[in-house]
Amino acid sequence: MTTTTTTNNTQNGVENDLHQGSSECDEEAVVLGLDGGTTSTICVCMPLSNSNHHLPHPLPVLGRAIAGCSNHNSVGETLARDTLEHVMMEALSKSGAKQSAVRAVCLGVSGVNHPKDQERILNWLRDIFPRHVKLYVQNDAVAALASGSMGKLHGCVLIAGTGSIAYGFAEDGKEARAAGGGPVLGDWGSGYGIAAKALTAVVRAHDGRGPKTMLTDSILKSLCLSSPDELIGWTYADPSWARIAALVPEVVSCAEAGDGVANEILNDAVEELVLTVKAVVQRLGLSGEDGRGQFPVVLVGGVLVSNKNWDIGQKVVDCLMKTYPGAFPVQPKVEPAVGAALLACNFLMKEKERNGVII
Amino acid sequence: MTTTTTTNNTQNGVENDLHQGSSECDEEAVVLGLDGGTTSTICVCMPLSNSNHHLPHPLPVLGRAIAGCSNHNSVGETLARDTLEHVMMEALSKSGAKQSAVRAVCLGVSGVNHPKDQERILNWLRDIFPRHVKLYVQNDAVAALASGSMGKLHGCVLIAGTGSIAYGFAEDGKEARAAGGGPVLGDWGSGYGIAAKALTAVVRAHDGRGPKTMLTDSILKSLCLSSPDELIGWTYADPSWARIAALVPEVVSCAEAGDGVANEILNDAVEELVLTVKAVVQRLGLSGEDGRGQFPVVLVGGVLVSNKNWDIGQKVVDCLMKTYPGAFPVQPKVEPAVGAALLACNFLMKEKERNGVII
Repeated sequence: MTTTTTTNNTQNGVENDLHQGSSECDEEAVVLGLDGGTTSTICVCMPLSNSNHHLPHPLPVLGRAIAGCSNHNSVGETLARDTLEHVMMEALSKSGAKQSAVRAVCLGVSGVNHPKDQERILNWLRDIFPRHVKLYVQNDAVAALASGSMGKLHGCVLIAGTGSIAYGFAEDGKEARAAGGGPVLGDWGSGYGIAAKALTAVVRAHDGRGPKTMLTDSILKSLCLSSPDELIGWTYADPSWARIAALVPEVVSCAEAGDGVANEILNDAVEELVLTVKAVVQRLGLSGEDGRGQFPVVLVGGVLVSNKNWDIGQKVVDCLMKTYPGAFPVQPKVEPAVGAALLACNFLMKEKERNGVII
Repeated sequence: MTTTTTTNNTQNGVENDLHQGSSECDEEAVVLGLDGGTTSTICVCMPLSNSNHHLPHPLPVLGRAIAGCSNHNSVGETLARDTLEHVMMEALSKSGAKQSAVRAVCLGVSGVNHPKDQERILNWLRDIFPRHVKLYVQNDAVAALASGSMGKLHGCVLIAGTGSIAYGFAEDGKEARAAGGGPVLGDWGSGYGIAAKALTAVVRAHDGRGPKTMLTDSILKSLCLSSPDELIGWTYADPSWARIAALVPEVVSCAEAGDGVANEILNDAVEELVLTVKAVVQRLGLSGEDGRGQFPVVLVGGVLVSNKNWDIGQKVVDCLMKTYPGAFPVQPKVEPAVGAALLACNFLMKEKERNGVII
């Protein structure tokens, strides 16, 4: 619970926060946490809590809503904005809380790569929420990291879903990222990257540029197509990255069945994902001067989920721990949207501390 | 000139052709040839001629028009259709010929990969031209081959522009292609492929996954951007493949200046283009049983145009001739749209021959 110790600060709408931070109001105060990936967008509404203190278990999620992709690079600005607004309002409505109870909103959205991206989304949010509501916009990887660390920003997260990205924070707050550039710009270990390579392998086997592969029958069957020639039309009929990435299970099945081409694609993906994490760890010095420092590696995304025999996530961890014996893998117990909600609470508390409010 | 020897054939609108094939009408009879690439679409209107006989020099182009991309995989069906209709009508209008003078239309369009693609475009054409006009729809590579062989379909063409494809015909009419699957499906030696690798190299150098490269300064300067972080937004702001491919000159300049990353990208592209041609030559047996048979390799597209020191086209030819000493490179003296017009004439003549008309 926060207590107002000063009402002398009117900057950035903090005065309102301080007023509403009284114990009476806090009973109903809520935050929104949102995870906007390339495939889907999830928003949760949670009570405002001080996550520096003991967190209740299980965490009380008051409302939860799901929508489609909100990455403006993938679906365009108008649709991205509409999706974000819709999913937030639905989560709030399901929670039973009033919009006036919202104290802070933290969005982790894929496609936020530059201060300009952040500013654009903040502008959208300013049109939705009143001035006193604190707004935070981050790359979705930051919310994913928070979901593994329960709100603490330290260590490195690796996301390999439709896209891939590694994002890390040092103890001093310094941050770094690698990959996350989408399909054109080298997310080679991502679900999209794996599936696009598999589709390409089918085309190359068909036209004589590459070896025969089980992927041909497997992928054509799963798409109900009769010839690799039809793959070109299928591929460009819909620009969705997630639709391509959905073919990853076919690649894993073929690799498990011993197909050489599929195995090479997955081994390359592991190598690429390891390289992505290493780039972040090196830049932040997370493993310390002796290279043995402890730090969490939070693993998130469908590509890293364990499969029958071909466990991409485990292979990535094995490779990483050879270089960084102090790295320890973390499988988040809550979803990234909850991570974003915890961040909303943490950011708000820190801001209040900075403004002289005793927490 | 064609002479009617029989009027006994009424199939497929041929009777009309035969009637209009009289010497009086032939003076004004014209054909349309169209080259629809991923970057632009060009249509020419030429007099109907028998290209099995002596072709006039220079070839008489009566009208020529240019429009944007007509690949339905890139711009969608509606825009592709509108572009095709508009550019054909403009070429006809510039030629001064009446629409009733059109005897045959041959379209070489990128994105035609399957009989379904052909049928779709034929349906569009049937709405534009009266029933007696002969309509032919091919992949744009076929028109490009014809531009090098002056209408004869034998040998192999390699196109490396925004996309890449190899397409060949054996003497017996058997045909084969390799690549041409667009950016997602392995056109790795294309202008798009080269430029996307260069953009990726800049992102990887920036986030620590790859070595430093001159491409960073060169590409950022050419795009008026200040940081590699801004490349992600730039890349996805516009889905045009040609916009990415336009960065190839930056890659060539950096390679010529000795940059290792740029050189590797171009060497990989050469290897990939050679592999693409080889796949077609092997499947058609163009080099004969002893591997020394003669056949033309027609080279088309901006990537194969010679540069100061780094001549991609020449390197491709050098590699090919090591494997196939009988391969001889051909630089077309006419543009692919003229190749398409020559094909229109040839196809029409062959059809008349089959229907018992003495040519």
